[in-house]
Amino acid sequence: MAESSEDSKYNIPEPALRRLPWYLAYIKMLQKNGEEYISSTQIAKKINVDASQVAKDLSFVAISGKTRVGYEVKPLIEALESFLGFNLTHKAVLFGVGSLGAALLQDSGLNQYGLEISAGYDVREAIIGKEVNGIPVYDIKDFAEHQKNNPVQIAVMTVPAEKAQEVAEMVIGEQIKAIWNFTPFRIHVPKDVVIQNTSLYAHLAVMFNRLNEL
Amino acid sequence: MAESSEDSKYNIPEPALRRLPWYLAYIKMLQKNGEEYISSTQIAKKINVDASQVAKDLSFVAISGKTRVGYEVKPLIEALESFLGFNLTHKAVLFGVGSLGAALLQDSGLNQYGLEISAGYDVREAIIGKEVNGIPVYDIKDFAEHQKNNPVQIAVMTVPAEKAQEVAEMVIGEQIKAIWNFTPFRIHVPKDVVIQNTSLYAHLAVMFNRLNEL
Repeated sequence: MAESSEDSKYNIPEPALRRLPWYLAYIKMLQKNGEEYISSTQIAKKINVDASQVAKDLSFVAISGKTRVGYEVKPLIEALESFLGFNLTHKAVLFGVGSLGAALLQDSGLNQYGLEISAGYDVREAIIGKEVNGIPVYDIKDFAEHQKNNPVQIAVMTVPAEKAQEVAEMVIGEQIKAIWNFTPFRIHVPKDVVIQNTSLYAHLAVMFNRLNEL
Repeated sequence: MAESSEDSKYNIPEPALRRLPWYLAYIKMLQKNGEEYISSTQIAKKINVDASQVAKDLSFVAISGKTRVGYEVKPLIEALESFLGFNLTHKAVLFGVGSLGAALLQDSGLNQYGLEISAGYDVREAIIGKEVNGIPVYDIKDFAEHQKNNPVQIAVMTVPAEKAQEVAEMVIGEQIKAIWNFTPFRIHVPKDVVIQNTSLYAHLAVMFNRLNEL
């Protein structure tokens, strides 16, 4: 992926970071089944990654396995959740309460993984002043004022693609430090702002294409 | 990413395929602004990819630019939408009408990109027989019967992680050919089944980690 060229400045490369939640999901399942220890070989087999890769990935979490018995499940889960930031609350606001935006406001699963969206912003009169899943929707013009009183660092971006760059620049000017971009538009941000792209439509495109080639 | 090792069997590599929707979004924006031609250099600059890469990616779509004037915007958009499958309707059903599942049923944006989810399936009495955004939710036990009368090829997977493998195997047994996996669990599928992983929580983890390292 194009993003990986940026990786050198971080302690853990993005592909490793993205694999950790897979390990976590699997290990939590084992815990439910009463398992107390797990080896990197076991994880590797289940996740379809080399065992040496698993051990290396987990070393970023500052956890090492013991010979023969492997990793202890409970502390491993705690270390992973802590490393991934899932046990903290990260406040966020969402821009663009259209179909996808409203859907994300309704996904309380994000809360369980540490993301708390406290407000939505839009430009459409029809939605401003309403609530979605108990979350208030404000006029985008009010964002700057809200940031002064109750600042957040994370913006979820679900505006129309052609507005993505403009809204991003506005929110960055108001102290937003990370943008979770759901639009298919490639937003340009300064080096000290984090951007994470989640293009559902790109994933759909891959699926359709692979399905055609079966 | 781990997926890329599988790429050799396909005509277009996944990273290229994932870039095409970015190009499409940008070119559509130019069209709205009245532009009639676009060069690969222009796209490259906006998307942060080499111009040669853009030209190569677009060659998979069987479109080539003309010297000096570049690509004609309108046929390029049509070719991209057609190649990506966004102008067709792909029928799908969704498994696990929890928080994320219900949210996806409410995202009518997926329709615009060619995915039509016609039903949800769950095991919980409380939701079976209800509708979400006009889409009926059935007992998962009824899926096999529905497939006989009105088969679909695509399953959207939003069940709890620990059920993902089990439900995947069941639906594959009922002629599902592609799974869009939103769970953090790595589902194993036979070689003739397409799997596309979209782990929102993995993206969150990356964002939290990068934010911490700022």
